Amino acid sequence: MKKNISKKNNFTEAIIIDRLFSKLNFNKPETFNFKNDAAFLKNKSNHKIIATNDSISENIDFFINDDPKSIAQKIITYNLSDLSAMGAIPYCYMLNLCLTEKINYNWLKVFTNHLLKLQKKYNFFLLGGDLSKSNSLMISSTFYGYAKSNYIIPQNKVKNHDNIWVTGNLGDSCLGFKIKKNKKIKLNLKYRNYFLNKYYLPKPCMLGFHIAKLCSSAIDISDGFYGDLNKMLNNNFGAILNVKSIPISNNLKNMINNNLILLDEVLNWGDDYQLIFTSHSKFEKNIVKIAKEQKVKITKIGRITNKLGIYTDSLKLINSYRYYDHFA
Amino acid sequence: MKKNISKKNNFTEAIIIDRLFSKLNFNKPETFNFKNDAAFLKNKSNHKIIATNDSISENIDFFINDDPKSIAQKIITYNLSDLSAMGAIPYCYMLNLCLTEKINYNWLKVFTNHLLKLQKKYNFFLLGGDLSKSNSLMISSTFYGYAKSNYIIPQNKVKNHDNIWVTGNLGDSCLGFKIKKNKKIKLNLKYRNYFLNKYYLPKPCMLGFHIAKLCSSAIDISDGFYGDLNKMLNNNFGAILNVKSIPISNNLKNMINNNLILLDEVLNWGDDYQLIFTSHSKFEKNIVKIAKEQKVKITKIGRITNKLGIYTDSLKLINSYRYYDHFA
Repeated sequence: MKKNISKKNNFTEAIIIDRLFSKLNFNKPETFNFKNDAAFLKNKSNHKIIATNDSISENIDFFINDDPKSIAQKIITYNLSDLSAMGAIPYCYMLNLCLTEKINYNWLKVFTNHLLKLQKKYNFFLLGGDLSKSNSLMISSTFYGYAKSNYIIPQNKVKNHDNIWVTGNLGDSCLGFKIKKNKKIKLNLKYRNYFLNKYYLPKPCMLGFHIAKLCSSAIDISDGFYGDLNKMLNNNFGAILNVKSIPISNNLKNMINNNLILLDEVLNWGDDYQLIFTSHSKFEKNIVKIAKEQKVKITKIGRITNKLGIYTDSLKLINSYRYYDHFA
Repeated sequence: MKKNISKKNNFTEAIIIDRLFSKLNFNKPETFNFKNDAAFLKNKSNHKIIATNDSISENIDFFINDDPKSIAQKIITYNLSDLSAMGAIPYCYMLNLCLTEKINYNWLKVFTNHLLKLQKKYNFFLLGGDLSKSNSLMISSTFYGYAKSNYIIPQNKVKNHDNIWVTGNLGDSCLGFKIKKNKKIKLNLKYRNYFLNKYYLPKPCMLGFHIAKLCSSAIDISDGFYGDLNKMLNNNFGAILNVKSIPISNNLKNMINNNLILLDEVLNWGDDYQLIFTSHSKFEKNIVKIAKEQKVKITKIGRITNKLGIYTDSLKLINSYRYYDHFA
């Protein structure tokens, strides 16, 4: 871990690294106890090391006054969710923090305590990282996981007639974001908290590793359900969806029925961090069994077709999909 | 590699990834041809995978009007230099780019072309990465290298009586930075370009892997010669230096003689990306031989002592060292 000395705001090497970050390395030899500028990765027999990375920035992925817990949850969820979609279980991660003047000791304390909680929950440790200064808070992270050598799940190798599945419920965080942005939306506190919580504290679906043998493709929903499904199809295949079967929480159904949000809006929204995966129908029973063991809700929502495009089951073209676009 | 679509400024998925970044993956299977959100790392028998990361930000490590070549050179040099200090040879890297509105297609073209040139020179490829938007240009990168399993060089395991060596010459980039910052410094064009070039296009010293068996410790100079040497000593040992033997280019000697810069200033400056390493005196001949084969200039500048502190060879305490401090 790179260390930079400063005495301002109690930001000394000793305090930042020893009091806040050292708890995150779980005393693993790979980290050299954060005493080197680098670390090493351990091989695991019959597994491959999967690497994925993601950055989140102020005003783009979060706001500077957001609870540091939420920011920690987002950087972890974005990455664990990618590992899961590749069929990997978490191993460790590198963390780059570009901190602004506004970030103080207490902020970092809440942030690192939440990282610790998530590390324990999902069983991975901090390998190393880098602290630096910036005009804008930026957190970037590289995550490592282990996938069984022959069962890394590709993103876009769907096969004709494969079943299409999704995990969990879609769209709750979409309404959470709408509520956060639009103060005029009137809702009772119970609903309000439910949706805001889904937006601020998204959870990764860690089913990927367990079903890797049985999947032809998988992706995590980060850029909108339709957009991500479209990436899986890769201009080679199409999808026929039973739109009514797409899993939505009862709370969200109420809101759709009250015209607070459209189903179409929900299905173009990212940040669900559920998985879409495809699988041959002969594996259906086995997949349902594993999902039950792992206590993950899964729903079969359609099938792959040779015909390009995304259709309803009455073969009406759904052409409303779009990606979330950082540059637009 | 994460892709985000946009049609603005020709920033489409096809153009950014296919035209600019795809050339950087060298068709390696580990990258999945940038078609997945993750990648995998290949083991190498009898080697360990070393990982290091670094971030550079606008107004901190570079300025927005700097040549994109220089920015590419810096992110690569900072990281290769860390790998070398650990005794590793380069393998591949992940790149996170947080781009601002000012970054256009041509900027990225020059940037990626220079990455390509450096990848070929030092033999490594782009494993994957992430493109996103930010208010401030931020580049963060995780680099991977292979070190022989039993010869990862530690940073701070110096032994009493070890020789202290440095590679190359120190301080040229320090004067380059001064010239850049202070328009009043008058210098003829030849000198001016020489020093600016050392500042804008720092080169990593890749000797580490070749001498890993013979070193007790190594570090790359990124936070100032004295500061980095002090990290190696780790409050357990001291150093006796023959200050006159510290290698300085003839050009810089001229400038010091003309009082344009102080030796002390130079030795507190980072960004040299040369290595400091320590080694038992019995390995001296062998080290000199390897450095010659690798065409790397090395200079023996002192030895480790049991007495804490950094001293001249007349045992006068040098107490002027300080770290470069991002937070100060």
